[in-house]
Amino acid sequence: MKRRFTKMHGCGNDYVYFDCMEQKFPEPEKNAVWISDRHRGVGGDGIILICPSEVADAKMRIFNIDGSEGRMCGNGIRCVGKFLYDKGIVHKTELAVETLSGVKRLSLQVEDGAVTSVTVDMGPAELVPEKIPVHLPGERAVGAPLEVDGETYAVTCVSMGNPHCVVFCGDPDAVELEKLGPRFEYHPAFPERVNTEFVSVEDSHTLHMRVWERGSGETMACGTGACASVVAAVLNGHCPKDKDVTVRLRGGDLSIRYTDRTVWMTGEAKIAFEGEIEL
Amino acid sequence: MKRRFTKMHGCGNDYVYFDCMEQKFPEPEKNAVWISDRHRGVGGDGIILICPSEVADAKMRIFNIDGSEGRMCGNGIRCVGKFLYDKGIVHKTELAVETLSGVKRLSLQVEDGAVTSVTVDMGPAELVPEKIPVHLPGERAVGAPLEVDGETYAVTCVSMGNPHCVVFCGDPDAVELEKLGPRFEYHPAFPERVNTEFVSVEDSHTLHMRVWERGSGETMACGTGACASVVAAVLNGHCPKDKDVTVRLRGGDLSIRYTDRTVWMTGEAKIAFEGEIEL
Repeated sequence: MKRRFTKMHGCGNDYVYFDCMEQKFPEPEKNAVWISDRHRGVGGDGIILICPSEVADAKMRIFNIDGSEGRMCGNGIRCVGKFLYDKGIVHKTELAVETLSGVKRLSLQVEDGAVTSVTVDMGPAELVPEKIPVHLPGERAVGAPLEVDGETYAVTCVSMGNPHCVVFCGDPDAVELEKLGPRFEYHPAFPERVNTEFVSVEDSHTLHMRVWERGSGETMACGTGACASVVAAVLNGHCPKDKDVTVRLRGGDLSIRYTDRTVWMTGEAKIAFEGEIEL
Repeated sequence: MKRRFTKMHGCGNDYVYFDCMEQKFPEPEKNAVWISDRHRGVGGDGIILICPSEVADAKMRIFNIDGSEGRMCGNGIRCVGKFLYDKGIVHKTELAVETLSGVKRLSLQVEDGAVTSVTVDMGPAELVPEKIPVHLPGERAVGAPLEVDGETYAVTCVSMGNPHCVVFCGDPDAVELEKLGPRFEYHPAFPERVNTEFVSVEDSHTLHMRVWERGSGETMACGTGACASVVAAVLNGHCPKDKDVTVRLRGGDLSIRYTDRTVWMTGEAKIAFEGEIEL
């Protein structure tokens, strides 16, 4: 059976997108593996199925390279917004998309009939250590000392639905991430492991970040990590609350705004190409 | 301008193929770079343009990831054969394809109207040291001692249009290729650098090979490297001449036959998907 797809990316985080509004997708766990293969398949960080929802405009289902189902992806959901609008499946710029992490609200920026960037309500930042979860004393872990591999780091811990440990440093590009990332990821303070961001403050509205994602290693861009970094920067007095802060990642820029109610993330959503595979 | 393409691979060596028989391809050096990007473009080891030829059935032009034009690619030319036949551009199973390394002859194996594998006449093996080129004494470098990084290796040097240095060893998977590959590549014995194959002999008709390609590092499959390995295995008495020898590469198997006149290479050619980009 031939099946059309759209290859899209946000900050270089790329997935193969399928319209499943009217047609089911067969065996996504199995097919995600070969479709994601960059030499023999289409190639991508996984596949995303855009399905009907009873509680939102659409439901997104993410299947990773290994066939496992993911909960949410900040770069992916922006592309879902562009897909729904550009393909004429929805005709409005304020959308709700169901994910395994709940319903997320999107605001689309449109130029000449096509979406150029998308703002996502990423939900509130969780700072209570037990809820992140992190084993550190106090009501919040903000600039808290943590010994890793014989050295003491000042860490700020935030959950954006997944646990993050933010470390401010002079130059993220000088960090030995391949060595240090796993030491943080498997540190006993993090019972569910952790995503670690090494962040420098360029000025009060610009951060530079590299990220080590649990289970994936260094990635080009991590939307929740960018959110956590700005939350941590506000808590440590580096950036203002309620203002857009640009986070420069390897794969591109994200703009993050931390408010009392939620964290807003704005970034690009792009179509690389259209194609057709035999399933 | 929209342009259709076909993504194909041979042993995991993947290119984006364009039919240029009737329509020119704009700025291939420039467009090859972004099209080859695996996150933002189509993704591949480069692009291959299938163009008209005055001396053969078609001409293939390869542009690498960096935009430079390549001379020949054994895995790529098999896919060119499949493209020409499966798309109905040619209607015969014995073809001639022009490359920057001369005209190559192909024999297509067809099942149910589609090409499954292709045999390529790769041309004769060159064994004269100055013509490879390699600075080693004697009429041929067969099992010749070469000191690399303080250790002495028995090397066999062959040109298949490009220079190869074949080293027989117990287990190619145990070789520290990232460290040793560049030491061979930039060794003063090889004035034009060299591709190095580490090869074990499983039996008289099966080799296992890993390859370090000059300028590229370790690759999944190298057609000329597989040819050079079988030539070297024959010269060292490990395999018979005029018989098919299977070479197991990371990306798949190739079947090689070394004769007095030429070296024959047979391997798969596969379509991954069809697509369309905006140029």
